Amino acid sequence: MVMKKVLLAFSGGLDTSYCAIYLSQELGLEVYAALVDTGGFSAEEIQEIERRAYSLGVKQFTHLDEKESYYKSCIKYMIFGNVLKNNTYPLSVSAERVTQALSIANFAKSIGADYVAHGSTGAGNDQVRFDMVFQAIIPDVEIITPIRDMKLSREEEIEYLRKYGVEMDFTKAQYSINKGIWGTSVGGKETLTSHLPLPESAYPTQITKQEAERVTIVFKNGEPVGLNDEIFESPVQVIQRLQEIAGPFAIGRDIHVGDTIIGIKGRVGFEAAAPMVIIKAHHTLEKHTLTKWQLYWKDQLATWYGNWLHEGQLLDPTMRNIEAFLESTQQTVTGKVHVLLAPYRFQVEGIESEHDLMSDKFGSYGEMNRAWTADDVKGFTKIFGNQTKLYHNVNNTTAAWATEK
Amino acid sequence: MVMKKVLLAFSGGLDTSYCAIYLSQELGLEVYAALVDTGGFSAEEIQEIERRAYSLGVKQFTHLDEKESYYKSCIKYMIFGNVLKNNTYPLSVSAERVTQALSIANFAKSIGADYVAHGSTGAGNDQVRFDMVFQAIIPDVEIITPIRDMKLSREEEIEYLRKYGVEMDFTKAQYSINKGIWGTSVGGKETLTSHLPLPESAYPTQITKQEAERVTIVFKNGEPVGLNDEIFESPVQVIQRLQEIAGPFAIGRDIHVGDTIIGIKGRVGFEAAAPMVIIKAHHTLEKHTLTKWQLYWKDQLATWYGNWLHEGQLLDPTMRNIEAFLESTQQTVTGKVHVLLAPYRFQVEGIESEHDLMSDKFGSYGEMNRAWTADDVKGFTKIFGNQTKLYHNVNNTTAAWATEK
Amino acid sequence: MVMKKVLLAFSGGLDTSYCAIYLSQELGLEVYAALVDTGGFSAEEIQEIERRAYSLGVKQFTHLDEKESYYKSCIKYMIFGNVLKNNTYPLSVSAERVTQALSIANFAKSIGADYVAHGSTGAGNDQVRFDMVFQAIIPDVEIITPIRDMKLSREEEIEYLRKYGVEMDFTKAQYSINKGIWGTSVGGKETLTSHLPLPESAYPTQITKQEAERVTIVFKNGEPVGLNDEIFESPVQVIQRLQEIAGPFAIGRDIHVGDTIIGIKGRVGFEAAAPMVIIKAHHTLEKHTLTKWQLYWKDQLATWYGNWLHEGQLLDPTMRNIEAFLESTQQTVTGKVHVLLAPYRFQVEGIESEHDLMSDKFGSYGEMNRAWTADDVKGFTKIFGNQTKLYHNVNNTTAAWATEK
Amino acid sequence: MVMKKVLLAFSGGLDTSYCAIYLSQELGLEVYAALVDTGGFSAEEIQEIERRAYSLGVKQFTHLDEKESYYKSCIKYMIFGNVLKNNTYPLSVSAERVTQALSIANFAKSIGADYVAHGSTGAGNDQVRFDMVFQAIIPDVEIITPIRDMKLSREEEIEYLRKYGVEMDFTKAQYSINKGIWGTSVGGKETLTSHLPLPESAYPTQITKQEAERVTIVFKNGEPVGLNDEIFESPVQVIQRLQEIAGPFAIGRDIHVGDTIIGIKGRVGFEAAAPMVIIKAHHTLEKHTLTKWQLYWKDQLATWYGNWLHEGQLLDPTMRNIEAFLESTQQTVTGKVHVLLAPYRFQVEGIESEHDLMSDKFGSYGEMNRAWTADDVKGFTKIFGNQTKLYHNVNNTTAAWATEK
Repeated sequence: MVMKKVLLAFSGGLDTSYCAIYLSQELGLEVYAALVDTGGFSAEEIQEIERRAYSLGVKQFTHLDEKESYYKSCIKYMIFGNVLKNNTYPLSVSAERVTQALSIANFAKSIGADYVAHGSTGAGNDQVRFDMVFQAIIPDVEIITPIRDMKLSREEEIEYLRKYGVEMDFTKAQYSINKGIWGTSVGGKETLTSHLPLPESAYPTQITKQEAERVTIVFKNGEPVGLNDEIFESPVQVIQRLQEIAGPFAIGRDIHVGDTIIGIKGRVGFEAAAPMVIIKAHHTLEKHTLTKWQLYWKDQLATWYGNWLHEGQLLDPTMRNIEAFLESTQQTVTGKVHVLLAPYRFQVEGIESEHDLMSDKFGSYGEMNRAWTADDVKGFTKIFGNQTKLYHNVNNTTAAWATEK
Repeated sequence: MVMKKVLLAFSGGLDTSYCAIYLSQELGLEVYAALVDTGGFSAEEIQEIERRAYSLGVKQFTHLDEKESYYKSCIKYMIFGNVLKNNTYPLSVSAERVTQALSIANFAKSIGADYVAHGSTGAGNDQVRFDMVFQAIIPDVEIITPIRDMKLSREEEIEYLRKYGVEMDFTKAQYSINKGIWGTSVGGKETLTSHLPLPESAYPTQITKQEAERVTIVFKNGEPVGLNDEIFESPVQVIQRLQEIAGPFAIGRDIHVGDTIIGIKGRVGFEAAAPMVIIKAHHTLEKHTLTKWQLYWKDQLATWYGNWLHEGQLLDPTMRNIEAFLESTQQTVTGKVHVLLAPYRFQVEGIESEHDLMSDKFGSYGEMNRAWTADDVKGFTKIFGNQTKLYHNVNNTTAAWATEK
Repeated sequence: MVMKKVLLAFSGGLDTSYCAIYLSQELGLEVYAALVDTGGFSAEEIQEIERRAYSLGVKQFTHLDEKESYYKSCIKYMIFGNVLKNNTYPLSVSAERVTQALSIANFAKSIGADYVAHGSTGAGNDQVRFDMVFQAIIPDVEIITPIRDMKLSREEEIEYLRKYGVEMDFTKAQYSINKGIWGTSVGGKETLTSHLPLPESAYPTQITKQEAERVTIVFKNGEPVGLNDEIFESPVQVIQRLQEIAGPFAIGRDIHVGDTIIGIKGRVGFEAAAPMVIIKAHHTLEKHTLTKWQLYWKDQLATWYGNWLHEGQLLDPTMRNIEAFLESTQQTVTGKVHVLLAPYRFQVEGIESEHDLMSDKFGSYGEMNRAWTADDVKGFTKIFGNQTKLYHNVNNTTAAWATEK
Repeated sequence: MVMKKVLLAFSGGLDTSYCAIYLSQELGLEVYAALVDTGGFSAEEIQEIERRAYSLGVKQFTHLDEKESYYKSCIKYMIFGNVLKNNTYPLSVSAERVTQALSIANFAKSIGADYVAHGSTGAGNDQVRFDMVFQAIIPDVEIITPIRDMKLSREEEIEYLRKYGVEMDFTKAQYSINKGIWGTSVGGKETLTSHLPLPESAYPTQITKQEAERVTIVFKNGEPVGLNDEIFESPVQVIQRLQEIAGPFAIGRDIHVGDTIIGIKGRVGFEAAAPMVIIKAHHTLEKHTLTKWQLYWKDQLATWYGNWLHEGQLLDPTMRNIEAFLESTQQTVTGKVHVLLAPYRFQVEGIESEHDLMSDKFGSYGEMNRAWTADDVKGFTKIFGNQTKLYHNVNNTTAAWATEK
């Protein structure tokens, strides 16, 4: 008789290690483990995770490198939209998890898996993201979530693993860390309160640079394609290289307080040097090269886009439509942005672009104008204020308002 | 024969000094000068401006203290809306200018002025703000703008003033500074380019504090009412006191690139320690106390509100409607926000509020949940993803999209 | 031993009759039945429903007249917002169901019910609306939904009722009709397809008037307060009276295709003469009395408001905030609207209002203007088009676009 | 010496006839006249206009047929966006005028005109649309507007023309009619008041069909490509053919009250049978084939798009971005829509589409569901209402609100 196949989204941690054993021992399934790599692992870590997987008896371990597809399907649009959830958080984990779900779903399909499993608990966002993507892409593949279903405690999992002879470092980390190319989240202890900040020591990247330095980011049609004088093969490399440069300044740390998909509030620390610098640099370049209403609508749409992505809804076709909008705005977002990096902070210092609308051909702000006269502005002002003047005249209300305030 | 009265919005600078002489000498008007005080002047400076006004021969000088009305009609709502133009600039000058125009218009009405005059040039935003407010509130009072109309150079103005025996310091400041309770703008030289930052020395407030300190801001229904353990009589005092504390850290400096009302791009530096700290603290408190959609809609409306205020359209009744919305959201925005102040930066560390939705009565993010089961979330996820699943099933598109990317 | 109390939302139909018996016979509960009256019942029908309730053995039957509260908490704001879901449907059933849920929840609380029951199936919107309101207002009262849980067929219910000696007209109506003060929905047969319209005979109100007539609706601050020369005590009476006048013209019929809360599409016919006439009349009055941006923002917010109300989320505080916005816009929406009623259609013919912005004091559209000159408009146009001109000049793109299209 | 060339946007009416003479006689220019044809003229009318032009002594008359380019650059997107200004008016004149301005600008460039002239007055929208497009596309070509500048009365123009021997029918039409492929506007007399409707006789297309008939519109990717069983070469033909069929029912008449670009209110009647039928048919097809949020965002963007187009800002690059969004949504908007045409009204009866999301594979509205269980919906509801429940629990407010209302 042929054993049924399950594909397990595997990270090598306690929960997914438990799942690996459980799926084969209790459910009698042939376990395929896949690690989706969105930039959070070193080559050594990947080797170690592979070793762990095989030691848990999986039939096959696969390393799915999705850094490029992650960039192309999510990060690119988050840059185009300057997406910062609640004006703070670059959606480091949210976007990553959706990418991982997509990768697992597609891989499950390619290997003809009968089941797909993930190690999410029943308390967070990730379960929703995984399940929703799986339901859309592989509706006929059943989802198994042992940790969520059995509400196991850490101790129960450890005991179970020991029973099967699994030896690993079972010490609980003080903080739960999630690292990826678009930022690292840090949760636990203080983030479970509303009033305490994370201590300096909680952040994985410690400050090691004290002397300010400058970096120039090169954008082409909205995408970061180079640093200083070097053009890279892929924006992924720009992000990674910039992270190496800016990370040691402890730039881009903050605490995000947001709405989970399940309706409660969540609080999490993060460090995201490269994402924060890129977004602010990109936004500044846009302020120079886009019109007022392009900036306005990008903002309105990107806020919603970020929220919906956060909620795992990347497959809603509305997202494709917004991406088409965003892409269309980036035609002139080409140029260089100069950034000052300093301990714990950075400053966008200026831009250069052939699409810069701060042209002095027409007239410069604050200086003597050239393309219109004082009378033109007087006429403009009369007409521009016409309706409001009319409204107050008809309703006899202006003075009342102005006085009362 | 009775002389006709003109009310001149007077700041004591070169342009409005020129206007004072011009209005009486060339136009034969009786000149009333008024200084609208929105928090940018010390008592000494006001005395000096008054002295200057009388030395220029004005009939009457009036100091209009509008700090409270400025707060009540503009700043309050910019706090409620966390208004930062283009996600950067607290609209320091924009809002102030509209308030000044309102004050001048009302005062002109009260003294029965036949004319009203301001010293704006024809190149910037201020002329539009002044004219539009005047047209709405005092439509029958003619507006006189000598500087705009005659396109005078600095040298011509000086020569003219000297002809009338006016002696003042005619040295041109390297930067044009505009100070008010909601921030100080710094323009000139580098800000006329796109690529250069302002030098450290250009900022009026130099860094004098190096040791980080903490401050707690107390909010009541969205308004900042106290600092640490002290409740103040007015939010204006909170802002002023916080500025004294945070300013010496050189916090809240940045460069704003934006769209002027007349359609060209403008670039200006600013320092706004108290406004930036208050807005970010207020926003954090809201993230804890408002629902997801309250945050979303506040954001969408406030962006537009800030833009329209910037364009001098405060008297459009739409603004009253948005203010009603914003006010209505602030019922639960009460609590304390802890902020760390450090050189060139600050960090909101946490909040305390009885309205904090991070309640653990229902379940905490990342921890074992209490008010719902794993099955509830599974059911939720199925339904939540239903339409997207359906869309892709009907159109047979999901896999294609996910693979293609 | 004291029996536990259940409050049953009772309509007298097959499903809730089944529930009444089931709750007492199978679950041993003391059944309180309440009929929430949102305008869909005649006095005779209410008496008949009461008789039916007692014949089913309920302990107590209560008629909750919520027409006024329905108007005040929902209809009023749907008028203010000109709410038509997907530009078609006045949310007749959606809003009504939420009102009913609120009424039941409050009544359950007042009688100290241990359980609350409703007869919704598991396929539609109503279950979500009832459950969600109950969970928010009476979180400690358990919800019982026999029809949904047991997936009973019509025949099984009938057999069960007959077993308990219940005799009623068990004939299935060809269409499922839901009538209330804000419109009547008609579902079944053709509405289960995408391509068939409802036949004339399916609509409860048949056409009986052929001669066109005129009616004038009087609005005060956005609320319909009178008809022709008569001012009514309550807008509810205006709606009811207008329905009597306009209904026999078969006005306001259409088919709504929309998204159910659970993610599938639903199609339903409706007739809503008074709601459609009032909304279009109100909207026309607003076009005369509100500014461009008031109209714009009302539209954007009301669309979302209608959707969220449809999804049963009336208790989200965001809804209160939007109501504050809408209420604030209605200050000048006072006047008379003249409407022509004709078979199957109506036409708003014109309005009269002291707040009408079509004032000729400033200038009339298409006629010689008064408050500005040709030069003013030329100046306006230059500035108004400045940025677009600048954009194309810098990017050298206009001609390309215009030619290519 | 070479004479300078002026290109005159010529319609053959009194104003532009005056301009033709004036430009040559008073300004000594070589007059090129061009008629931009956006569907409002018969072949005979065009011949007559050409004859008139040469009789006025123009150097060259050109008939610019822009029906296809009008459709491609404007109408297509108004269909995609279901654009009805203030929910009523298909922007018949607004869009047409912008297209005409584009055509004139491009033609002026191609013939190397030194000047461009149009016959707009200083009171309306058209002057702004013409000027703004000209400024952007042909910034170096000076604009001449004799009618606006000289504020001539009808009588003065007639006298002037007679002086130069021009004989034409100088009788003033009772209504000003503007006809084009996307609708016909009717202004004058009653539309200058707020309370009077246009009389039946004012509409150019009189009712001549009394018997209801059915028509099926075929859409492909959002574009109307066929009627009944016939596929046409171009959507322009579909619009024209549908107009022939539906027009004689006097369908699509209404009065639009809107905001002119110069800030005053304007009122105008219109008849637009084909546009209204196409938009409502297209919208219905979308309700079946797009997701909830696609419909929502299309609506929000299209409202703004329509307003901005109305204000002559088609060249703002934001418009290209929104068009990219709209285009992207139309991938699945393919199918047939059945419409009933009757005197003065029409009814969309149903649709057929392979992209119809009213699939019964998952479950139909109101029927027994298939792809989820009652428990799934219960779980969904719990989570969906979680935050609102939490908000009221923390703030202890629900009951208060519900009772108070």
